[in-house]
Amino acid sequence: MIDARGYSAADAQSRLSLFRFEREEGGPHDVTIDVLYCGVCHSDIHQARNEWKNTVYPCVPGHEVVGRVSAVGANVTRHALGDLVGVGCMIDSCRSCEPCTSAEENYCEGPNSWLATYNGPMVPTSKATTGENMYGRDNSYGGYSNVIVVSEKFVLSIPAALKPEVAAPILCAGATTFSALKYWGVSKGQRVGVVGFGGLGDMAAKLAKAMGADVTVFTRTSEKLQEAARFGVTGVLEHDTAALQKLSSAFDFIISTVPERHDVNPFVKLLKRGSTLCVAGALEPMSPVNNQDVAFHRRSVAGSLIASLADTQEVLEFCAEHAIGPDVEVIRMQDINAAYDRVTRGDVRFRFVIDMSSLTESEIE
Amino acid sequence: MIDARGYSAADAQSRLSLFRFEREEGGPHDVTIDVLYCGVCHSDIHQARNEWKNTVYPCVPGHEVVGRVSAVGANVTRHALGDLVGVGCMIDSCRSCEPCTSAEENYCEGPNSWLATYNGPMVPTSKATTGENMYGRDNSYGGYSNVIVVSEKFVLSIPAALKPEVAAPILCAGATTFSALKYWGVSKGQRVGVVGFGGLGDMAAKLAKAMGADVTVFTRTSEKLQEAARFGVTGVLEHDTAALQKLSSAFDFIISTVPERHDVNPFVKLLKRGSTLCVAGALEPMSPVNNQDVAFHRRSVAGSLIASLADTQEVLEFCAEHAIGPDVEVIRMQDINAAYDRVTRGDVRFRFVIDMSSLTESEIE
Repeated sequence: MIDARGYSAADAQSRLSLFRFEREEGGPHDVTIDVLYCGVCHSDIHQARNEWKNTVYPCVPGHEVVGRVSAVGANVTRHALGDLVGVGCMIDSCRSCEPCTSAEENYCEGPNSWLATYNGPMVPTSKATTGENMYGRDNSYGGYSNVIVVSEKFVLSIPAALKPEVAAPILCAGATTFSALKYWGVSKGQRVGVVGFGGLGDMAAKLAKAMGADVTVFTRTSEKLQEAARFGVTGVLEHDTAALQKLSSAFDFIISTVPERHDVNPFVKLLKRGSTLCVAGALEPMSPVNNQDVAFHRRSVAGSLIASLADTQEVLEFCAEHAIGPDVEVIRMQDINAAYDRVTRGDVRFRFVIDMSSLTESEIE
Repeated sequence: MIDARGYSAADAQSRLSLFRFEREEGGPHDVTIDVLYCGVCHSDIHQARNEWKNTVYPCVPGHEVVGRVSAVGANVTRHALGDLVGVGCMIDSCRSCEPCTSAEENYCEGPNSWLATYNGPMVPTSKATTGENMYGRDNSYGGYSNVIVVSEKFVLSIPAALKPEVAAPILCAGATTFSALKYWGVSKGQRVGVVGFGGLGDMAAKLAKAMGADVTVFTRTSEKLQEAARFGVTGVLEHDTAALQKLSSAFDFIISTVPERHDVNPFVKLLKRGSTLCVAGALEPMSPVNNQDVAFHRRSVAGSLIASLADTQEVLEFCAEHAIGPDVEVIRMQDINAAYDRVTRGDVRFRFVIDMSSLTESEIE
């Protein structure tokens, strides 16, 4: 076993604190990674606080993990000792269902779907009704820790042009938005809307712009209008109904990155005939959608989830090539609770990234 | 002016009754039609009872109109005296917007959208804020009448192989469902679900089957399971959760034909990864859709509205070629109020069609 340290939530009410645990030694196909940086995703907060009602405690969040390979199994061929690598939202999948064999592991239809980097498997053994849990474990511990062991297939290569702390949020925020923009065919000259201007919105706007689109971000935070201008995209306040009215039927694609239940109706009206609004940030019942607005222009409201391994690798390379990446604020592990509070009130531009070296400096908060 | 007779609702509470009115004489591009049959669409009931809060009274419903040409304007070239013709949901559109010039008049983006066959224009003059109503009228009177005058472009040709009373419901129920099935690419070997088994559901099931799909209809009415078997399609009760469970991720496309707000979540789960559920029957805010079920399989919930003129003509010919059509129950005009009550409680297999010759037999109910 490997002695590991991390930060965990003990229950839905607890602040995160130091947690010592053991990780299994890597097998022949596994890569052991010394974690350098881990991004802070809004999902981490939902999960730590049991807002999706499926958290297994203790919960060690973190699925935007960048580190250096410290050991490889005998059969590992893709990664070598010392490589800078990344781990995103998944660390395994069934590998045999139709999506898995079509390189869409993020839509794995195996009995427990894909294995989440933390709080996986999705159906814990204790709740599994169809025989044994296929991944043979009750829980997984994420990247808020000094070391992680992952099957080589689920380990991404970080391009040399990307700083490790900038690469980290690309593994979820970047990949999730890239996957949707790519799937719905965003291309040069199109008009793309981004609803919500946090960690995912920041990446969605930059990626869509790099794809050649004319990008508008919709935000509730007037201070963020300046940020939009700084990125070279148009910013519109969500409650500026006169501005929204002028944008009726103007967009080829809209991605919503708001990480909770919200009302998409004002944005559905902005879609061109036959176009799609994709909800990529929320995983809950949405506000009722008025089918009059949908049907009168044959629009669609879709959803998409994280990204395949191939898309994740592709977005890392896309960001390196286009010299884009998230705006990050690097914090110490010990600052995580304050950071959660700031994320919750939208006070971050745009992604916190934990410098994991802080974990060794001081282990007591 | 032409003296016309029809049946109208005087207000939201009134039963329909005889109504004498005048229609404008046809101009050089117009076709005057002696109405033979008119289908009874659930929309007629919504509109007569002001359930969409936009009814202009008196309201003469009817947008599944089949009749014989009794006069043509000097410039009419498509239709001739004595032709059997049809009129669907629209009698005009702006003719200049992008959808109109792309043969998708049903998505007209002109200032008043397309002109509905009855209760049109969508924005009545009295409520228009952007200058004069482009169609120059406050209301339109539909096919529950003995005569109708329509611009030739909006008049369809009824193939000789179709009986006129069978052709009538194809003009809305058939066209609306055909348009969605065609747009989402339903094809041989696919599995297609039809939610709701009334007038639209009947046509959707028959059309999808004729396109080569394996069709399942979902109904609340156990008596309709036999009807499904009779049509050669599978019937499943909407509340049979065990049956629905077995159909998870099984469908390539699902069309909902339920004519009011309803919960699509149980059917979203039946879609294959990347597939679409199209709401074609309801025009109101739907029940909240759980984005977890949508996003986890990159599904879409879409809407579509009636059909273009081209698709309407195409479905008439498709039905003639495949020898399919709605199951109809022919009624007298005087029976309309009882028919509305029966439609409301789902007691029709599957479409009432009014024999308009009844209007001359007795003008007093």
